[in-house]
Amino acid sequence: MKQIPFEKVTIVMGSQSDWPTMQKATQPLSELEVPFATAVVSAHRTPQRLVEFATTAHERGTKVIIAGAGGSAHLPGMIAAMTPLPVIGVPVESKFMTGMDSLLSIVQMPKGVAVATQAVGASGAFNAGLIAAQMLSLSDEELQQRLIAWRERQSAQVPFEVE
Amino acid sequence: MKQIPFEKVTIVMGSQSDWPTMQKATQPLSELEVPFATAVVSAHRTPQRLVEFATTAHERGTKVIIAGAGGSAHLPGMIAAMTPLPVIGVPVESKFMTGMDSLLSIVQMPKGVAVATQAVGASGAFNAGLIAAQMLSLSDEELQQRLIAWRERQSAQVPFEVE
Amino acid sequence: MKQIPFEKVTIVMGSQSDWPTMQKATQPLSELEVPFATAVVSAHRTPQRLVEFATTAHERGTKVIIAGAGGSAHLPGMIAAMTPLPVIGVPVESKFMTGMDSLLSIVQMPKGVAVATQAVGASGAFNAGLIAAQMLSLSDEELQQRLIAWRERQSAQVPFEVE
Amino acid sequence: MKQIPFEKVTIVMGSQSDWPTMQKATQPLSELEVPFATAVVSAHRTPQRLVEFATTAHERGTKVIIAGAGGSAHLPGMIAAMTPLPVIGVPVESKFMTGMDSLLSIVQMPKGVAVATQAVGASGAFNAGLIAAQMLSLSDEELQQRLIAWRERQSAQVPFEVE
Amino acid sequence: MKQIPFEKVTIVMGSQSDWPTMQKATQPLSELEVPFATAVVSAHRTPQRLVEFATTAHERGTKVIIAGAGGSAHLPGMIAAMTPLPVIGVPVESKFMTGMDSLLSIVQMPKGVAVATQAVGASGAFNAGLIAAQMLSLSDEELQQRLIAWRERQSAQVPFEVE
Amino acid sequence: MKQIPFEKVTIVMGSQSDWPTMQKATQPLSELEVPFATAVVSAHRTPQRLVEFATTAHERGTKVIIAGAGGSAHLPGMIAAMTPLPVIGVPVESKFMTGMDSLLSIVQMPKGVAVATQAVGASGAFNAGLIAAQMLSLSDEELQQRLIAWRERQSAQVPFEVE
Amino acid sequence: MKQIPFEKVTIVMGSQSDWPTMQKATQPLSELEVPFATAVVSAHRTPQRLVEFATTAHERGTKVIIAGAGGSAHLPGMIAAMTPLPVIGVPVESKFMTGMDSLLSIVQMPKGVAVATQAVGASGAFNAGLIAAQMLSLSDEELQQRLIAWRERQSAQVPFEVE
Amino acid sequence: MKQIPFEKVTIVMGSQSDWPTMQKATQPLSELEVPFATAVVSAHRTPQRLVEFATTAHERGTKVIIAGAGGSAHLPGMIAAMTPLPVIGVPVESKFMTGMDSLLSIVQMPKGVAVATQAVGASGAFNAGLIAAQMLSLSDEELQQRLIAWRERQSAQVPFEVE
Repeated sequence: MKQIPFEKVTIVMGSQSDWPTMQKATQPLSELEVPFATAVVSAHRTPQRLVEFATTAHERGTKVIIAGAGGSAHLPGMIAAMTPLPVIGVPVESKFMTGMDSLLSIVQMPKGVAVATQAVGASGAFNAGLIAAQMLSLSDEELQQRLIAWRERQSAQVPFEVE
Repeated sequence: MKQIPFEKVTIVMGSQSDWPTMQKATQPLSELEVPFATAVVSAHRTPQRLVEFATTAHERGTKVIIAGAGGSAHLPGMIAAMTPLPVIGVPVESKFMTGMDSLLSIVQMPKGVAVATQAVGASGAFNAGLIAAQMLSLSDEELQQRLIAWRERQSAQVPFEVE
Repeated sequence: MKQIPFEKVTIVMGSQSDWPTMQKATQPLSELEVPFATAVVSAHRTPQRLVEFATTAHERGTKVIIAGAGGSAHLPGMIAAMTPLPVIGVPVESKFMTGMDSLLSIVQMPKGVAVATQAVGASGAFNAGLIAAQMLSLSDEELQQRLIAWRERQSAQVPFEVE
Repeated sequence: MKQIPFEKVTIVMGSQSDWPTMQKATQPLSELEVPFATAVVSAHRTPQRLVEFATTAHERGTKVIIAGAGGSAHLPGMIAAMTPLPVIGVPVESKFMTGMDSLLSIVQMPKGVAVATQAVGASGAFNAGLIAAQMLSLSDEELQQRLIAWRERQSAQVPFEVE
Repeated sequence: MKQIPFEKVTIVMGSQSDWPTMQKATQPLSELEVPFATAVVSAHRTPQRLVEFATTAHERGTKVIIAGAGGSAHLPGMIAAMTPLPVIGVPVESKFMTGMDSLLSIVQMPKGVAVATQAVGASGAFNAGLIAAQMLSLSDEELQQRLIAWRERQSAQVPFEVE
Repeated sequence: MKQIPFEKVTIVMGSQSDWPTMQKATQPLSELEVPFATAVVSAHRTPQRLVEFATTAHERGTKVIIAGAGGSAHLPGMIAAMTPLPVIGVPVESKFMTGMDSLLSIVQMPKGVAVATQAVGASGAFNAGLIAAQMLSLSDEELQQRLIAWRERQSAQVPFEVE
Repeated sequence: MKQIPFEKVTIVMGSQSDWPTMQKATQPLSELEVPFATAVVSAHRTPQRLVEFATTAHERGTKVIIAGAGGSAHLPGMIAAMTPLPVIGVPVESKFMTGMDSLLSIVQMPKGVAVATQAVGASGAFNAGLIAAQMLSLSDEELQQRLIAWRERQSAQVPFEVE
Repeated sequence: MKQIPFEKVTIVMGSQSDWPTMQKATQPLSELEVPFATAVVSAHRTPQRLVEFATTAHERGTKVIIAGAGGSAHLPGMIAAMTPLPVIGVPVESKFMTGMDSLLSIVQMPKGVAVATQAVGASGAFNAGLIAAQMLSLSDEELQQRLIAWRERQSAQVPFEVE
C-alpha cells in the first residue's frame, strides 16, 4: 500500500471516472494550503486495498479522509467502519438515478458509524475539501484565519447586480 | 470465525433487528429441504468479521449467501466483492425512507460485482430463500423436482373466489 | 419456438431496442467461456411466445435466464412465474423515469416468485452475465476457477493513481 | 376456468388480500346496475389461470376487465396483452413503497398494449368501477342517463358548509 | 365552440407544445379507421373553453375524450368532472420532474371522478388512441375484429433475433 | 352561490375531510383579526360550484383565496385560472403518497396562472392564513403592525433550553 | 446596502447563475407596468447581506419580495423569517435532482413563516412576477383591471387548432 | 445570548420537538467524555438568535456545532454560512415526506458552504455526536484512544447468533 500517496487529507474514489468530480475537492485545499493526496480505492473491485487503506490510514499520518463514489456507493461507509478518522462522503452523480442512489447509499449510515455526507456532484466534492480544512483548523489557528479570510473573499466576490 | 454456523445456504444480516424480516428466508428453504445457517455480520460494526466471513465462505462449503441489511445497506455488496459465490441481497425496510434507501444501496452495484437483489422486506426475504434453492437445483435434479412440485402446490392454493 | 436459439444461459429482452443495453451481459459470459443465446421475447406484444419460452426453457437445457425490460417491465417476473430456473432481471433505462419504473416493476415481486434483480442499465446487464456464470459455477469447478481469476484480474486492473 | 364467475364487468385481483381494496369497485357498479363478477387471478402464482382467463374473456361475454394488484403489479398489463377488451388497472397500496411501485408497474406500459390506470388504493378501485360503467354507457343510453343522474346526486351531496 | 372540430374520439391538449407527444395518439386511430378530431383546450389559460368543451362533448357525438397535459396537469381530471364520457389522460413529459408531476396530477383522482391514465409521454399517447378504439369496439364488432388483427400483426412483427 | 359565506379571506377545500387540516389556516387569521369565511368547493365533484365561486369571488369582496386539496389537487389551480385574486394553495396530506401527489399537483402550474403553494398538511394550512394576512397588510398599516408584533411574540416564545 | 436597487417588487436570487431563470419574472411585471428591481443576495455566501436586505426591505418601500434559489434553497425562507412582507419563492432547477431538492427546501416551511412557492424553473419565475402583481392589485384597482385584461389576452391567444 | 450554554460541542435544534431525536447525539459524547451544550435556535422563528449564535460560536470556545432540523431545514446550512467551525447537520424526520425534505434541504448545499450531513432521524443524531468526537480527536490523542476502544467494544457487542 505504500504506493498510495497520503497526506493530512487523503482523497480516495471508487473509480478513475469519479476524478472529474472529485478533483473539485482539491481546489479549496490548495487555496487554503492544506496538503492532500489522491488515490483510487474501489470498495467493490479492490476490497483488499480498501481494508488495507482504511485500517492503516490513521497510522500513516492521514487526519481526514474524503471518499467519493457513485451508485451503490459503499466506499465512504466502509472506510468509516475501519478507521477512527472522520470520513467525508461525496455522492458522485449516477447515470440513471441522478445521484439519489449515491446519496442514500452514503448518508443513511446506521447508528455507530458516521459519514460526513456532502451534496451530490461537483459542489459536494468542493465542499468536502472545504470542510476537511475546517476540521483541521480546529487545532491550527493559522488555518482557521486563512479560512475566515477565504470566506470573506468569497462573500466579497458576490456582485450585487445581475447581468 | 468457526463460531459462525455455515451450510450450503448461509443467511447473514447486518443486525439482530433484521431477523424478523430475514427469518422469512428460512421458510422456503425448510420446505424444500435445503440446509441453511444464520449469523449476524455487520459491514459497519464488524468489518473484520465481514472480511473473514466473505473471503472464506466458499472454502467452507457454502454455495449461496443471502445477505439482508437496511439503510446504507453495504453488506450484500461488500460480501459479493469478496467471494466468488452468488450473493442474494434483501433490502430490509428502513424507518424513514420506506426501504428505498436499502433497495438502492443494494441493487445499484457497479459493473463487475453483482448482487441478486430481492424486494424490500419480508416478501424479498422469502424469495431470497426460494431463489437460493433454485440456484442449487441447477445441479440437483431432486431439488428441482421438489421446486416444481412446490410451485404447483402454490398455484393450487390460490382460490378462485374472493371472500 | 425452435427458432429461439438457446444455451445454458439464455438472454431475452422485451424489445430490439433493449439490445444495446443487454449486449453488455454477453461480455463476462464470453470472457468466462459460458455459452449463451439471445432472443426477443416481449411480455406485452408476444405473450404467446413468452408462455412457450418460459414454460419450456428448463426442458431445452437452459439453466439460467437473463431477462431485460424497461418501463412496466413484466418480462423477468412473468418468466420467473413459469419456470423453475433462476431468472435474472435487468431494468433497462426508461425515458421519463430514469429507470425507476423499470427497477420497481422488476424487483418488487410478491412472495413466491423471485427475480434476481440487477442495477439499472448497462452495469446491471454486465452483472447479469457475471452472476449467471456464478450460478453455473456452483457445480463447475473449472468455471469457478476462471471466475476467481477473472476477479483477480479485475482487481489488478484498478490503478492506484488518478490521472 | 368455468369456475370463474364472469359478467359484463369482471373484477380480478392478484391476491385475496387485495379484496378489501378492490371491493370498492363494486359500489358504483351496484349503484349503476351494472352486473359484475369477481375472481382471484395471480399473474405470478397462477400464470396458467392468467393465460386462460385473459385469452378467453372476450368470448365469454365480458366487456370490461378491472384488474387490481400491488408491488410488481403485472396482472393488468399481462391481461391487456392477451385480450382485445379494455383493461382498467388499480394499483393496490404496497407496504414499503406506499403504492409507487404498484402505480409505476401498471401505468408505464409500452407502446402497443394499454391499461386504463386509476389512483392507488380504494379511490382508484371505486373509480375503476365507475369508468367501467362509463365505457359500457357508450352503447347503452339508459346507463348513460343513470350515470348522469348519479353524478348529479354526487354533486348535490357535497355540502357548502364545513363542520 | 363550434370551431373545435369533434369526432367519436376527440383529442385535446393543454398546449400546442403537447402536440408532438399527443400526435402519437392518432396513429392507432388512423390504422384502426376510427375518426378523430384534435383541439387545444387549456384548463388554466382557457377555463371557459374547458367548461364549454367538457359539458357539451357528449351532446355533439363525441364518445371518448383523450386529454394530454404536463406539470400540474388538470385538464384530464377537470374534463372528467364535467362529462359522462370516459376520459383518457396522457401525462406529457415535464421539464424538471421527468413527468412524475404530470403523472401524479392526472392519476391520483379522488373517488367519484375517474381518468383512464396512460404512461408518460409518447408511448402513453399512442396507447391512449389504442384504448379509445378498444372502448368503441365494445359495440362495434368490426372494429373489434380490426383490433384483434392489428394486435396479431403487432405480435408477428416482433423478430426473434436481436441484431 | 349566496350560500357560500365569503370574507376578505375565503378558505375553500375540496372535501369536508380536508377541514381538520384547513382549520389551521384560521388560527393566524383570528389572531391577526382578519375576517375569513369557509366553504367546501370540490373541483371534481362540484365543478359548477367551482366555476361560479371562482369567477365571481373578486366581485363579492373577497381579496385572497386559500384553497386546500389532496391527491390530484386541482382546486387551487383551477380557481387561480378563473380569478384575478391571488390564490394560496395548501396540499392536504394524501394516504398513499404522503402528500407528494398533492404538492406536485398544486405547485407545478404552467406559465400564466400562479398559485402561492404552502407546505403539505397542517403547517402549510397555518402558513396559508399567515401569508393571506401578509398580502392584505400591503395596504393596511395597522395589520402590518399586528403582523410585526405577532412575529416578535412568536420569536420570544421560543425557549433557549431544551427540556 | 443602498447599492441594492429596490422597488415595489424586488427580485433577489442566490447566484448570478439563477438569472436566466429569474429573468422570466420580469416579463409579466413589465407587461403589467409594475416597477421592479433585481439583486444577487446569497443566503450562504453573503449572509450579512441577506440579513441587512431582509430586515430592512419593508422600510425602503418594497412591498413584495421574489426570491429564487436552487439546491438547499434557503434564500426565500430566510428572507421570509426576517420581513413582514410576503415572500414568493422560486425553486431554480438543480443539476442532479431536477429541482426536487430546490422545491422541497423552499416549500416545506415550518408553521409560522410562509413562502408563496411557485413551480420549478422558468414557469415558476414567470408566475412569481404574475402573483406579485396580483398581490399589489389588491389595493390598486387599475392594476387589477390590467391584470384582468392581461388574462383575457392570454386566453384569446390560445389557438383552437394544433399545428 | 449568554443564556445559551455552550461547550466544545454545541448541539442546537430548530424546535423543542426535535429534542427526542437530537438527544441521541448526546449518548456517544457522554460515553466518550466530550463536553456538550444544547439549545433551541430556530432559523425561521428566531433569525436574530441564529445570527448571534452562529457568528460568535467560534469566539466562545465552541469547536463543533451539531444542528438538527426538519422540513425546510435551513438551520445547519445557515449556521455553516456564518461560522468557520465545522457544522454537522441532522435531518429530523418530517411528517409527510419521511425526512426526504429535511435531508435534501440540509445536504444539497452550494459550493462554498459545507454541512457534514448525517442520516435522517435518531441514527443520524447519534452519529452526529460520534463524528463530532472524531473531529475533536484529531488533536486529542486520548480522545482518539477512547474512540478506538469505543469502536472495539461496539464490534465486540455484535453477537454471531440471531435469536
